[in-house]
Amino acid sequence: MSRFSIGLDFGTLSARALLADLSDGRIVASVVYDYPHGVLDAALPSGKRLPRGFALQHPGDYTGALFALIPALMKESGASPEEIAGIGVDFTSSTLLPLLPDGTPLCFLDEFREEIHAWPKLWKHHSTAPYASEIEKTARDRGEEFLARYGGRVSSEWLLPKILETLREAPAVYERAIFAEGMDYLVWIMTGELTRSAPSLGYKAFWHPRKGFPAADFFRAVDPRLARFPAEKLAGRILPVGSRAGVLTAGAAEKLGLLPGTPVASGTLDAHAAGPGLGVTRAGQMYAVLGTSGCHMLLGDRETDIPGICGVMEGGILPGLYGYEAGQSGFGDIFAWFVDNAVPGVYREEAEARGIGLHALLSEKAAALFPGESGLLALDWWNGNRSVLVDPDLSGLLVGMTLRTTAPEIYRALLESVAFGMRMIVETYRENGLPVDELIATGGIAGKNPLLMQILADVLRFPVRLGGTDQASALGAAVLGAAAAGEERGGYASLLEAAARMGSRSDTVYLPDPRRADRYDLLFGAYRTLHDLFGRGEISTMKLLSSLAKSQDEEALL
Amino acid sequence: MSRFSIGLDFGTLSARALLADLSDGRIVASVVYDYPHGVLDAALPSGKRLPRGFALQHPGDYTGALFALIPALMKESGASPEEIAGIGVDFTSSTLLPLLPDGTPLCFLDEFREEIHAWPKLWKHHSTAPYASEIEKTARDRGEEFLARYGGRVSSEWLLPKILETLREAPAVYERAIFAEGMDYLVWIMTGELTRSAPSLGYKAFWHPRKGFPAADFFRAVDPRLARFPAEKLAGRILPVGSRAGVLTAGAAEKLGLLPGTPVASGTLDAHAAGPGLGVTRAGQMYAVLGTSGCHMLLGDRETDIPGICGVMEGGILPGLYGYEAGQSGFGDIFAWFVDNAVPGVYREEAEARGIGLHALLSEKAAALFPGESGLLALDWWNGNRSVLVDPDLSGLLVGMTLRTTAPEIYRALLESVAFGMRMIVETYRENGLPVDELIATGGIAGKNPLLMQILADVLRFPVRLGGTDQASALGAAVLGAAAAGEERGGYASLLEAAARMGSRSDTVYLPDPRRADRYDLLFGAYRTLHDLFGRGEISTMKLLSSLAKSQDEEALL
Repeated sequence: MSRFSIGLDFGTLSARALLADLSDGRIVASVVYDYPHGVLDAALPSGKRLPRGFALQHPGDYTGALFALIPALMKESGASPEEIAGIGVDFTSSTLLPLLPDGTPLCFLDEFREEIHAWPKLWKHHSTAPYASEIEKTARDRGEEFLARYGGRVSSEWLLPKILETLREAPAVYERAIFAEGMDYLVWIMTGELTRSAPSLGYKAFWHPRKGFPAADFFRAVDPRLARFPAEKLAGRILPVGSRAGVLTAGAAEKLGLLPGTPVASGTLDAHAAGPGLGVTRAGQMYAVLGTSGCHMLLGDRETDIPGICGVMEGGILPGLYGYEAGQSGFGDIFAWFVDNAVPGVYREEAEARGIGLHALLSEKAAALFPGESGLLALDWWNGNRSVLVDPDLSGLLVGMTLRTTAPEIYRALLESVAFGMRMIVETYRENGLPVDELIATGGIAGKNPLLMQILADVLRFPVRLGGTDQASALGAAVLGAAAAGEERGGYASLLEAAARMGSRSDTVYLPDPRRADRYDLLFGAYRTLHDLFGRGEISTMKLLSSLAKSQDEEALL
Repeated sequence: MSRFSIGLDFGTLSARALLADLSDGRIVASVVYDYPHGVLDAALPSGKRLPRGFALQHPGDYTGALFALIPALMKESGASPEEIAGIGVDFTSSTLLPLLPDGTPLCFLDEFREEIHAWPKLWKHHSTAPYASEIEKTARDRGEEFLARYGGRVSSEWLLPKILETLREAPAVYERAIFAEGMDYLVWIMTGELTRSAPSLGYKAFWHPRKGFPAADFFRAVDPRLARFPAEKLAGRILPVGSRAGVLTAGAAEKLGLLPGTPVASGTLDAHAAGPGLGVTRAGQMYAVLGTSGCHMLLGDRETDIPGICGVMEGGILPGLYGYEAGQSGFGDIFAWFVDNAVPGVYREEAEARGIGLHALLSEKAAALFPGESGLLALDWWNGNRSVLVDPDLSGLLVGMTLRTTAPEIYRALLESVAFGMRMIVETYRENGLPVDELIATGGIAGKNPLLMQILADVLRFPVRLGGTDQASALGAAVLGAAAAGEERGGYASLLEAAARMGSRSDTVYLPDPRRADRYDLLFGAYRTLHDLFGRGEISTMKLLSSLAKSQDEEALL
């Protein structure tokens, strides 16, 4: 009887619900809900000012989205409740809610309403940076083996820095609360049981499917009050991706307009949900969400510690495969910067006269160039380097300018630079024994810039296929829902099978051209030389420049 | 009775005549003559096509200018012939005319009219590059001591490469002709005697005031037919700067509207004439002509071979002092490139709305930044590097870009980069025992960009004074005329005295600010690291990029 699965995708500023056909993943309907409070980075709803680096959210926005989206989706699609096989959910991570043991958000209590640490901390809550450094140092000093799985670094965006900040700056909150990731909070609301998403713990909280959390000694070393940390504050069954967390309670079903007993999948992270959504199913496939920044997920058949790769987890994306996570902190925002800050008016005028966008015009002119023809080469670090150098103080570099250099030439050099940056990640995987043989590209830029896709194929020397949807995460959540439903409800026996059948892949494939690829091999060699020279500390120019700029910032603040 | 001196300044596209007051160098009148034929780089006047790299001129343009300018100057100023104490002339160099022994330009003969090598070769006639390399190699292989005086390199712009090209490609022209630099040709026309400008031979033809030309063995090694080269083809008295070459012949005087017997100074090179024109008189002073490129002349008190400095000559600028010549092949043209190719329309709109130039607007915004604040650093090699690396294949580099980088920040980084480039030259002088303690800046950019002048002072850590005229070369030629006239005609006993009295210096002096200068010391350290890394062959990135771009050029030509 069931024909559909619901995918819920909770992003930074909005949430989306999508109805997918169980048989082929076709997207039947999709609705979006903008969070009324968005990101609280300046003040609490009461008007209380927030410190620099804070990024909070309102828990009511999550439940508001949940209870608005699904009824709207059902109405929009005309589907009936009994046609829904299951529900899946993905969420940004680590986005962490302090809750009472009964699930009430702490910030809803009068006594905590004005307590800034009682509110959910969004993934990009960056005031935790000193705590991340402290945790990293403690782990390194103790020789904690888990650190290597995270490329040797601890990010301020992860779970424990948020916890430690709360413990240190608002011990009463820590004392009173338990904590839940956003996806687990929503699953709890739907099923009545607080379970834990294994991928979110694996990528953001040092948990390992076989080894569990780090030992109590480590947490005690970070802070004696954390000695019983995971058991006390992160209780709940830890569920692998694609498993069933539970079924809709009667109460939840009524509010959602669905049937009680409808299966709900254990949640996962947004970028990780995109894997099944794109039909990625085997080792060697890398998929990338290419927007302002680039997030790259690779499926591998083994676990290896790779320097500068953010994380690896068995079953992190699909069961039985190892999900590796890497990223480029600057991607589309570099091209956006260029267009806003470095393109003469004549190009804008030409684009307007022809009724096309400036990116399209520059791409058209840049496409006429052969690799190397401009004599330009760039390092793509306008927003620092996430992988494989993990250094936010690195900056952009452009070399080769002459008096004949034009804006389209620079534009092409910037496109090439992010392709070289991605190849650097791919080479790092390869050098550590992990093959990569295909890229599935999705996100805002993938479909909009064919030149960039071709450059990626030429630089990477393997096919670049477009994802079949720009809602890959939401579709992936629906795929999780189909797996959680199981065959008995018209879903699938496994997440792999569900992903293979429902994942959306475009027929658009960019193949490398050998002549251009040969030329790019030479240019990548030059890129790599500069990459190592400026990025691995042989030349400290960027560090000096960054520190001079910052010291000036401080002077300006005085 | 005499009150004035005439200065003649022959540039690339036009010639200028100027009347200067003998007592204080005040410019009484000035007239300009555009060469009707300009630069012949595409075809001869007959329409015959020229090979790539050719840059010829029409000898009639020189005499046409001479016989038009002086009468026009006399008319414009209202001066009478008896008030003219003397005449001086400067000329681009090496600009070389093939002539019959009677002074007739070879290209005026029917049999040579269509022979491309029978026409004067302008200084920037660059088809000679392979001949320059051949000469350099021969000199190096033979261990010729003169090579060190020229920084170890032979430029395609000098005299011998032009001679060798003519010998090899048009032996009949070589056989038939003698050769004269432009300034010597004009002096010959005025005085009736072919004399030779010592500075032009010193800087452009390997001649040394005490050592003379290289030995015959060297010329024979370059080509057996050159065995008697200088004696046979460059005959004539070699005269030091500031000396009298002769006096006006009756014939010349009549055509010029001056008195026969009026003294004519031996000629010099245009940039070198600017020294006396700016009142530069002592060791440690460096003066720079800052236009599209930068030409820097330093007075020293000894002769030292300095790697990467184009040339040194005793008496090359002023008698008794050593004139060192260095240059930056990209200067104002880098800022012009930036404004044309990398500044968004919003800045142009703001400049237009405020009725100011785009350079002025960018300078205003850039002036608000403290050194280092932008986090940017550039290598100023958009047009290669003349000093101290002497490498045309080097290219520009910009490092430190973030997503917040703005156009005015980059503009300031480019201004700073040429200042760092100049400091690199100054440091090279110092490291070789030549102090530099003052810069006198002239040329199109000096008066137009106060921010750049201040940056130069802050980076160089010594005063930067503006020249008092933008006609420094023409005024310098007039100073030469005043010295050639001598005290008995109301002129001066020496060129030094004439320069001290008549040279034009502005009261505008930019003094270094210690706080900014300290910050620039740090940034210059970073510049120097990149300079040596990319410029001295440790990192071959720019060479690779340049060769890839060129190989593409060749493919495009096929």
